[in-house]
Amino acid sequence: MPPAIITLTTDFGNTDTYVAQMKGAILSINPAATIVDITHEIPPQDIRRGAVALGEMWESFPTGSIHVAVVDPGVGTSRRIIVAKCDERLFVLPDNGLISRVLEASASSEVVEVQDRTFWRANVSNTFHGRDILAPVAAHLSLGVALSRMGPVATNLALLNSSSPQFGERQLTGEIINIDRFGNLITDIGLEHLRKIPTTEIVVRHRQREVAGVSQTYGQHPGGALIALVGSRGYLELAIVDGHAANEIEASIADAIVLSW
Amino acid sequence: MPPAIITLTTDFGNTDTYVAQMKGAILSINPAATIVDITHEIPPQDIRRGAVALGEMWESFPTGSIHVAVVDPGVGTSRRIIVAKCDERLFVLPDNGLISRVLEASASSEVVEVQDRTFWRANVSNTFHGRDILAPVAAHLSLGVALSRMGPVATNLALLNSSSPQFGERQLTGEIINIDRFGNLITDIGLEHLRKIPTTEIVVRHRQREVAGVSQTYGQHPGGALIALVGSRGYLELAIVDGHAANEIEASIADAIVLSW
Amino acid sequence: MPPAIITLTTDFGNTDTYVAQMKGAILSINPAATIVDITHEIPPQDIRRGAVALGEMWESFPTGSIHVAVVDPGVGTSRRIIVAKCDERLFVLPDNGLISRVLEASASSEVVEVQDRTFWRANVSNTFHGRDILAPVAAHLSLGVALSRMGPVATNLALLNSSSPQFGERQLTGEIINIDRFGNLITDIGLEHLRKIPTTEIVVRHRQREVAGVSQTYGQHPGGALIALVGSRGYLELAIVDGHAANEIEASIADAIVLSW
Repeated sequence: MPPAIITLTTDFGNTDTYVAQMKGAILSINPAATIVDITHEIPPQDIRRGAVALGEMWESFPTGSIHVAVVDPGVGTSRRIIVAKCDERLFVLPDNGLISRVLEASASSEVVEVQDRTFWRANVSNTFHGRDILAPVAAHLSLGVALSRMGPVATNLALLNSSSPQFGERQLTGEIINIDRFGNLITDIGLEHLRKIPTTEIVVRHRQREVAGVSQTYGQHPGGALIALVGSRGYLELAIVDGHAANEIEASIADAIVLSW
Repeated sequence: MPPAIITLTTDFGNTDTYVAQMKGAILSINPAATIVDITHEIPPQDIRRGAVALGEMWESFPTGSIHVAVVDPGVGTSRRIIVAKCDERLFVLPDNGLISRVLEASASSEVVEVQDRTFWRANVSNTFHGRDILAPVAAHLSLGVALSRMGPVATNLALLNSSSPQFGERQLTGEIINIDRFGNLITDIGLEHLRKIPTTEIVVRHRQREVAGVSQTYGQHPGGALIALVGSRGYLELAIVDGHAANEIEASIADAIVLSW
Repeated sequence: MPPAIITLTTDFGNTDTYVAQMKGAILSINPAATIVDITHEIPPQDIRRGAVALGEMWESFPTGSIHVAVVDPGVGTSRRIIVAKCDERLFVLPDNGLISRVLEASASSEVVEVQDRTFWRANVSNTFHGRDILAPVAAHLSLGVALSRMGPVATNLALLNSSSPQFGERQLTGEIINIDRFGNLITDIGLEHLRKIPTTEIVVRHRQREVAGVSQTYGQHPGGALIALVGSRGYLELAIVDGHAANEIEASIADAIVLSW
């Protein structure tokens, strides 16, 4: 049997030892687990960005993978911790909206509230449930403990408002949901929307800037050109060839992107 | 048998290939080792911060783990390299004080000086003992080579001045020993001190700023409040709810924190 | 058999999920692979720095290791993807010069062009060949698929202009090819050059600054001294003891370093 895969997505950064303490907690329970860092650079307390990161990466991992996410401004309050099983992957995270995008994208799901202290650290701190609850729960799940043993079925999850694009008269309005290291602006406009649109005739607009049509690759264009293209996960992106679109056109997360035709 | 765990704590950063060269050296000797990054963002040459990082994380890892630390301004001089066995974990590091906090916190310890070149890289550079001595020594230890084979017992270790808090007349003075990504100020005042104090009556002071009492969690307070609480490892912390205490109250490592009652 | 080692060197940074998506792609094919991050902080699109990073680290890894590198401004154009076998290690990368320094340093090499889609992701995006082609190819190679099955022998590789040092009249001119976290200036002047020079008599010059002789270690000198020494991989470096040479003498990548005697 291959080793279990446990991934970590947090806002802990790469400087402190918090992530390492979580890894120690996992390896203390399952020393054979394969631990994969997704990112620890989610902006502090930014649940929305955490949800986007989970949404981007989970389908690249095999079924059976266990994804732990800690962006947890409510730690120590009554917010719940949940395990969600979505399309045969497990997600261990606070019930604060982090699961939203994965849940929207998955065909099947089943969610339990984490309640059975058998699977927690003996002493649970008030400020670090990542180490004391989420990591041990993930480690026990990786050893084959059944989802149902963690606690009862959870309903009424605390989900984020979906930012799904809105169709208008010969128009579609989406928004920028992520900006990557290269300055590319990733929108929430996906293939399911683009298929309904005459993409050869569209104009893509961010504030006063307009781009005609959707390109296939960066390489077709001269350096400095602002282009729209379908990114590696099937979402419309704006990019500047050999440049940094976010800086050069002063774009931010949540800015509107309007397609018209 | 589960794979051996070797952790790495350095001031090499995440940009250069020095950490990777150490990993290559380990995997060349023990390809089955599980290597865990603790942090590589210790400020360059800052032994004190390195010692704090080791002190924070080691108890989260299982016994038998091997912790390598490289913050090594004296590389190439006559400073010794040691292996310390503390409470059934091994630490491979220069004898420059890095081990200080672990040693203070552990019930049993045994230290040898690394001398037997059998377990080193064939060619040892003058500037990168992390790759050429510490990593190979850790890898050989992970394969079961006995501690005693590395060299003779080491005495008179070069330890840091302990910063242990000082009791005064209805007063306890500690200091800030770490500042995390969230701006939380972590002090050296631990449960062993707090147990001797009427914590419901205390005032916690940083320069002119005072906080009354010790909170249980962040979530009890409104955003912007400066609070004192016991952190996830049992040490007193100052934090600003939904804020960055270090920036907002201009606090630095080594600042005094005074409790009075 | 020990687990296969696959390393990753990219310009993707540590914030986005691109690296994680590559790891998911690898583990989906070979769940037992040991994945090692070399660095993801190659400056965006900087092939030359990527080539230097590969050149620095590959010899530290055991034979049989598979090194994937993605610095790929030409993604989606007709640039080829290649697998190079150099001194019993495999390199999977775009044919854009990334392999240059490894190729110069290795005694034997064999290169194929990646063409057989059997070993690729079913759906290949135009913008993320790292996840869709390079990672799956590396994973299949790690399972023992023969190099020759990836595609035909590749010739006329797109190599970088070598920056090899030039001898003059009692003079050798090299250049700075890397600057590390400590501000050390790493040159392309190696032992093979230094052996031909009376190193006890040399003066090392960067613009107007001169250093006499080559030191053995940092520790011999007082803080603040600018020194020249042979670094851990056998290349001449300039460093300021307890300082940051790059900032203090305002040195940059590609600056000339002149030795005279």
